[in-house]
Amino acid sequence: MKKSFGAKIIVLSAPVWCVGSYDSENRPNVMTVAWGGVCCSSPPCVTISIREATYSYHNIMEREAYTVSIPSGNHIKEADYFGIVSGKDTDKFKETGLTPVRSEIVDAPYVDEFPLIIECKVIHSYKIGSHTQFIGEIIDIKADESILDENDQIDPEKIHPVTFAPVLRRYFAKGSYLGRGFEIGKK
Amino acid sequence: MKKSFGAKIIVLSAPVWCVGSYDSENRPNVMTVAWGGVCCSSPPCVTISIREATYSYHNIMEREAYTVSIPSGNHIKEADYFGIVSGKDTDKFKETGLTPVRSEIVDAPYVDEFPLIIECKVIHSYKIGSHTQFIGEIIDIKADESILDENDQIDPEKIHPVTFAPVLRRYFAKGSYLGRGFEIGKK
Repeated sequence: MKKSFGAKIIVLSAPVWCVGSYDSENRPNVMTVAWGGVCCSSPPCVTISIREATYSYHNIMEREAYTVSIPSGNHIKEADYFGIVSGKDTDKFKETGLTPVRSEIVDAPYVDEFPLIIECKVIHSYKIGSHTQFIGEIIDIKADESILDENDQIDPEKIHPVTFAPVLRRYFAKGSYLGRGFEIGKK
Repeated sequence: MKKSFGAKIIVLSAPVWCVGSYDSENRPNVMTVAWGGVCCSSPPCVTISIREATYSYHNIMEREAYTVSIPSGNHIKEADYFGIVSGKDTDKFKETGLTPVRSEIVDAPYVDEFPLIIECKVIHSYKIGSHTQFIGEIIDIKADESILDENDQIDPEKIHPVTFAPVLRRYFAKGSYLGRGFEIGKK
């Protein structure tokens, strides 16, 4: 028997994505979003959703580019902070001591200290309701050497990404390995 | 120093969402997607992306509705199976022994044995490239009594949702609690 909760957002496993953008004076900004994810394999694309009231919204509309910097658990306080204050009146990089790096391939900055970076060009935007969605084509993925394995490939055991439970507002670390996709279902 | 991986999808913490739909003969189908997430707060909406070649694509186009059934770790084999075979020639519910339930509010079935259900009406679709995105307005969220706490609210500690690492194709359980959102960043 299932209990109804109505039209609410109670969805576990939302990502914690720190979205980088430049304002009209080339000041780097970063805000944390939980409304985001991959949305296409070819071309590889991600989508993020942002309210029009945010500083980042106007930056991304103007520059048609953004980055996603994925924090590991040891930067969760900074990531949470990036979602609380506005870039309108705060230099979030300065306040946290983290380093903005200008992407060489898209018109946006990323967070140098975070282990995994997605660099995107906006190919489509759509106002849904409170939030506008920005579909970004992935131009490059960059990873810290610290999260690479002996074959120079990304090792998810080393990245310690964070997930977020909306409404409940709880952060979780990634848990234990369960099995291999497109394989365990064959049994 | 960061290493470039090119325009690939290497993004951790994708969800494991089992999307329910009906075909033209009212046969229930379910497929697993990792390209999905919340995309708007008001109205509350999720987005899923599906290839046109899938059976579910045509079902959802026609019915303009779908459900998302979120499995816990103990149904990860069934969820993986739902992403491997096609509903064109397989009754995935029959093969797994899981139960399709007709939603009373949207024109789609959900998986009775899975603890958390999102029932959606499609309000927008957009062909990105290989995948078409279906934005679904959440009409109701339903949860098993087994995952409710003493106040009849959803307890994320009880649901044991799964995340998926694309490309690497690894499933992970949810890990340990890290802290409270919009709070730990204030420190």
